[in-house]
This record gives sequence, C-alpha cells and structure tokens, in this order.
Amino acid sequence: MELLDKLNWRYAAKAMNGKKVSQDKIDNIIEAARLAPTSSGLQPFEIIVVKNQKIKEQIRPIAWNQSVITDCSHLLVFAAWDTYTEDRINYMFDLTNEIRGFKNEGWENYRQKLLQMYPQQDAEVNFNHAARQAYIAFSQAITAAAYEGVDATPLEGFDADKLDEILDLRAKGLRSAVMLPIGYRDADSDWLVNLVKVRKSTEDLVTVIE
Amino acid sequence: MELLDKLNWRYAAKAMNGKKVSQDKIDNIIEAARLAPTSSGLQPFEIIVVKNQKIKEQIRPIAWNQSVITDCSHLLVFAAWDTYTEDRINYMFDLTNEIRGFKNEGWENYRQKLLQMYPQQDAEVNFNHAARQAYIAFSQAITAAAYEGVDATPLEGFDADKLDEILDLRAKGLRSAVMLPIGYRDADSDWLVNLVKVRKSTEDLVTVIE
Repeated sequence: MELLDKLNWRYAAKAMNGKKVSQDKIDNIIEAARLAPTSSGLQPFEIIVVKNQKIKEQIRPIAWNQSVITDCSHLLVFAAWDTYTEDRINYMFDLTNEIRGFKNEGWENYRQKLLQMYPQQDAEVNFNHAARQAYIAFSQAITAAAYEGVDATPLEGFDADKLDEILDLRAKGLRSAVMLPIGYRDADSDWLVNLVKVRKSTEDLVTVIE
Repeated sequence: MELLDKLNWRYAAKAMNGKKVSQDKIDNIIEAARLAPTSSGLQPFEIIVVKNQKIKEQIRPIAWNQSVITDCSHLLVFAAWDTYTEDRINYMFDLTNEIRGFKNEGWENYRQKLLQMYPQQDAEVNFNHAARQAYIAFSQAITAAAYEGVDATPLEGFDADKLDEILDLRAKGLRSAVMLPIGYRDADSDWLVNLVKVRKSTEDLVTVIE
C-alpha cells in the first residue's frame, strides 16, 4: 500500500535545512488536520502556524533548544480548549444546523446531553479530553506531511506554560498540547536519518481474540 | 490530493452491515498504527483485535448499545499502558540497540533520563500521556482504513472500567483508551451517510503568525 511506503519513509527529523514548504502542501497538511474526526464533532482545538522567525527563536529555548524549531519552514502548534463551555458546544451544534440546513430532534437532545455534562466537569479533565482530540488531528497532519514527501517532527518536549505565554494562548481559552515543525530534513546533519526505524513487532503490539 | 479525497469520503458510520474486511486490508490498517510515531519511541499501548462475536456482544451494552460494535468486522481496542515502568522503558531501549546493532552514548543517557522521570510520576499522569500516544496510532489507523475504502467508527463512548474487565486488561498493565470498529457502512440504515460533513472553517481553526 502506497500509504505504508510513505509512513515507512517518514521519521522525526532532528535537523532541517530551512527550505520553505510550498503553500499548497501546507494547505493540504492543514486540511487533513481540519478533516480529522473528533468527539461529538466539537473540534476542541486550534492550530497556530508560526512562520515568523523571531517567534520561532523565542520558542526554541523553551523546547530544549531543538534546531528544528528555527530551521523548519512552518511550526504548527496544536492548542486544545482549556475546557468545554456552553458557548463552545453551542457554536458547533449551531454550525451543524446551519450547514445542514435543518434541525434534528435527536441531535438537539444530544446537544442538551453534552451541555449538561462537559461544562460541569473539572477543567483539567476537559482539557485532557480536548488534547486527545487535538492529537487525532496532529496525527492526520503527520500522515499528510509524509504523503506530500514533507518532513514533520512530532515534538512534545517543551515548556507548555511558557509556550502559552509566547503565543498568548490562555487569553483565548487555549493551552498548547503538541508541536509539529514542518520542513525538509537536513540529511547531512541528522544522525537519525540513516538509522533503521524501530517498532515493536506486530506480535508484541497486537492481540487477536478469534 | 488523493489522501484528502479519502478523508472527505470517510465518516463515522453509525450502522455497519456485518461484511468481513479482508485480512490484507486489516493488516495494512494495523501496520499504519504500528508505524505511528510515539513519544521517545516507547509505543506505550497495545491493540486488541476482537473478532469473536460473543465478546463483541458483551461489549455492546457497555458502549451505549451501539450496533457498530456487533455489526463491524473487526473491533480494534487501543489500550494504553497504565503507567511507565523501568522494565517497559528498558524493553524499548534494548530493542532499539538490538535492531540497530550498536549502543550509542547519547541514547543511553536519554534512557537514564527517562528512567529517572517516568516511573516516579503519578500513574494517572503517565496513563494520560500514554493514551495520547495511543491516539496518534488510532488516528493513523483511521486514515489507513479510509485509504483502503474501509469504514471505521472512532468510539469513545463506553465504560472503560467494564471494558478493561471484559478484556482482562488491568492484569496486563493496560487500560482501554479508545475503540475503532472496522467494517462496511450499512448505507440503507445510517441516517448520517448522506449528511454533509461539518467542520469549522480553516479561518476559525487556524491562526497564521507571519
């Protein structure tokens, strides 16, 4: 399967060469993230695309000084909702009614169920749930980048509070979950590039209940 | 881009027709999940593939009685590590050394760093981190299913403790994170099948910092 070839080709580049990724490829990667399924369709996250070199330079020291932060083309930050609120839930249900052009009783009952559940939960529980949804989109972006022959480095190692400050995320009700520098591998500088991909065997990973 | 066409084609089928998915397609979907990147390459999860109809029937009532549980072909359960232990961390570092055929000082230092960090953390924090990694693989499985023209229904609505019991996951140090029934849509019974896909606009989802 061609997709598997692409997934075997990809790796988490530790060095990038600064070359810019074309806008159409960036658009496709973001579109894959936008199309990702999320719990109840709420899409409880936003994507910040950092192209500004000065902002990247501010972020690098709070992310273990990793060079991909400044040498990537576009730095994607997936920021999840800090909690689920009534307004946020209503927005997506209203948008659904607007796009589909009708109201459905079952759907409206489901809206009420979510309104009675999420906003009453602890914000940390809600953020953790929202962050998982962001990871679904993040993963689709990784796959789409590989599909486009573009490198992408999943990056969790950063000070989230400081990143929230730099990007002023808290004021928007967001918290950074994960980053994805997009660009092109610098094969000459990356010790990882020629190493064999290591994964658990299928036997170790998978149990089949016949 | 062909991948986007596939992602637009997919939706969370609410009814499946019981038709079996071929082994090669299932293998490709699982291989995509196996190839997914995870934090420090630890792959802190396992995938349980439930083909057994009686087990599916036990699971259905603890998952809002959703028919896709019993009418799917293969029910994938993504179960994350209940915590990070020294043994689990060492297993992946040893496997890496074995596959690559050499020891690297930086890599061994990194092993020590993780050994000093993860096992000392609260198990719930570790499980939440492991579950996010499972979601990356889960998402790659969703994309691969779409790529194969197979339906897959992301499913979070279930009683995780009861699912852990049915599959005896706790004894293996695992906790269920999310399910993915794989099969074929029953277009005649699914009210969702002909509805327009609803997503936030790119403008609402994405902020670009130029």
